[in-house]
Amino acid sequence: MILKLSEVGEFGLIKKLAGGCINDIGSVIEGIGDDAAVLRVAEHSQLLVTSDMLVDGVHFIRGKIMPWQLGYKAMAVSLSDIAAMGGKPRHALVSIAIPPAITVEEIEEIYTGMKAILSRWAVNLVGGDTVKSPVLTIDVTMLGEAGDGILRSGARPGDQVLVTGTPGDSAAGLEILLTPGVWSEELLPADRNLLLSAHLTPEPALAQSALLVELGCVTSMIDVSDGLTSEINHICDRSGAGAEIFADQVPLSAPAVRAASLCGKDPLEWALYGGEDYGLLFTVPPHQARRVMKSFARADLGPVTVIGTIKEQSLGQKLVLPSGNKVNLDPAGFNHFKENG
Amino acid sequence: MILKLSEVGEFGLIKKLAGGCINDIGSVIEGIGDDAAVLRVAEHSQLLVTSDMLVDGVHFIRGKIMPWQLGYKAMAVSLSDIAAMGGKPRHALVSIAIPPAITVEEIEEIYTGMKAILSRWAVNLVGGDTVKSPVLTIDVTMLGEAGDGILRSGARPGDQVLVTGTPGDSAAGLEILLTPGVWSEELLPADRNLLLSAHLTPEPALAQSALLVELGCVTSMIDVSDGLTSEINHICDRSGAGAEIFADQVPLSAPAVRAASLCGKDPLEWALYGGEDYGLLFTVPPHQARRVMKSFARADLGPVTVIGTIKEQSLGQKLVLPSGNKVNLDPAGFNHFKENG
Repeated sequence: MILKLSEVGEFGLIKKLAGGCINDIGSVIEGIGDDAAVLRVAEHSQLLVTSDMLVDGVHFIRGKIMPWQLGYKAMAVSLSDIAAMGGKPRHALVSIAIPPAITVEEIEEIYTGMKAILSRWAVNLVGGDTVKSPVLTIDVTMLGEAGDGILRSGARPGDQVLVTGTPGDSAAGLEILLTPGVWSEELLPADRNLLLSAHLTPEPALAQSALLVELGCVTSMIDVSDGLTSEINHICDRSGAGAEIFADQVPLSAPAVRAASLCGKDPLEWALYGGEDYGLLFTVPPHQARRVMKSFARADLGPVTVIGTIKEQSLGQKLVLPSGNKVNLDPAGFNHFKENG
Repeated sequence: MILKLSEVGEFGLIKKLAGGCINDIGSVIEGIGDDAAVLRVAEHSQLLVTSDMLVDGVHFIRGKIMPWQLGYKAMAVSLSDIAAMGGKPRHALVSIAIPPAITVEEIEEIYTGMKAILSRWAVNLVGGDTVKSPVLTIDVTMLGEAGDGILRSGARPGDQVLVTGTPGDSAAGLEILLTPGVWSEELLPADRNLLLSAHLTPEPALAQSALLVELGCVTSMIDVSDGLTSEINHICDRSGAGAEIFADQVPLSAPAVRAASLCGKDPLEWALYGGEDYGLLFTVPPHQARRVMKSFARADLGPVTVIGTIKEQSLGQKLVLPSGNKVNLDPAGFNHFKENG
């Protein structure tokens, strides 16, 4: 039987490929299946490593993102994976495939954006590859240090589910870029800037991650790259657990709510299915959530919000609507949670 | 002034981009500019890391290479970079961009090839990314251990220049693939197989590298990915030296010589400008070459041949022809060394 890729999907493909990958098990603490691999490189030293590839026309559209923004974002995505493991980023490698029509100036601008965010986090750019291709493609490999990597797999029933930042902003920014129309001209300039920045130059939650490591109470963590629903699914899958998320507790920014109202979209859908927010979704034992929130406020690290609870696996992954009704949180579709009427 | 990429070339571009890359100098022993970066990850632990990107239509042609060969070769290329540093490969990450028309079986075959060579060298596949793209693109990041990384920069005047294997075989294999014609049907089947294997499933010189590290006499080393001329140029550039290479000492395989004679090409040009051989080009102090050759013979590690001598930088990089005449070894062109008449 010949399977097409569209039939198995990215996660199905990864499952198919993940067998037979480990030939020296003693050096691998965590292989394929988390935000980054966790490797043992010396007696007491753990290394985090992750790769993320961005392709023109798939992950970005040349002309809709400035070259320096593209460089900035390519690095932010990988820095975010290190943040999701509770690690400290140290070194980056960039492989870039360049179409003939691109100017040297444009490539230099991409690297200017990369270097801007790397210098802010004291990360070195130590290597990579530059090749020709018909399609601009950027693959970033990020190396980081981990004390004890925070995995996706430690969530336990009773744990509270929290998220940093305001998910959905990036999807709102993408909406402005792709279907601008009249509605987006009615947006406040400040709203527009905030939402576009959320999409084009997202900030990795490294400071938030460092604080959470210091607090020492996080049981599982992931970054919000594919939307809250997908991330909750990953944590539940790897932890062997279920979850209940409360629709009216998902923190939406006022600019996203205003933008959604202007273009007739549901901002909660942006948060649940949009992705590319690069906040952190994490779980803590119940008595720890308040402590986390106080520490975030004291350190001025932006919003952190309890959005739900980890449950037994048999209860599945549910979205609790304001009416009290529960619907399945399905990472595959984005209208399944709509109530009729 | 708007520069096109073709005007600055790959190495020119890398020079332009290499500034402002290091933000934490204490952790970087060698950054951009060698076969792999050398990083300090713990008190006495050095990490090698390198990325290599292969693009359909640029580095390979789908239909001219079987999927498992492509996977095998993608890994061999990166393993070879670790060999060139005198390191031991440990972990690989693969980012793959997949066009919609490819079947899941074809992707699985690519990974079968990757896993075949990785298991042989006890290397783990620990992560990566799978994305959509119009163009099949594979970026491999390889992590390795180094005692003391062997750099490109240690060659000194008087050192002898050696190469492992028989460079030019891969270019001969490529010739068979791209311009088969009548001549290639006249090739002995064994010649054909050897040359095609050299191109499609090259073997990284890891065993040779390990022996050279053990011998402890190598002053500089690089792998032959772009052709001998280009590699000699890199070693001379980084070492601040010149070189003389003797045309009639470059070891050519009998199959390559026979293939060249059938298709009317010069096998020496294949060796000097073809590339993708993935042997090692290295330098040792003069009294060490014989010891190296004896050790290779004893360990049955294939040919190792003295092809020239390191000179003062002011003498440039020369090819000494059988006539005794010297011509410039120019990495940019491939006819400059031809004698008139």
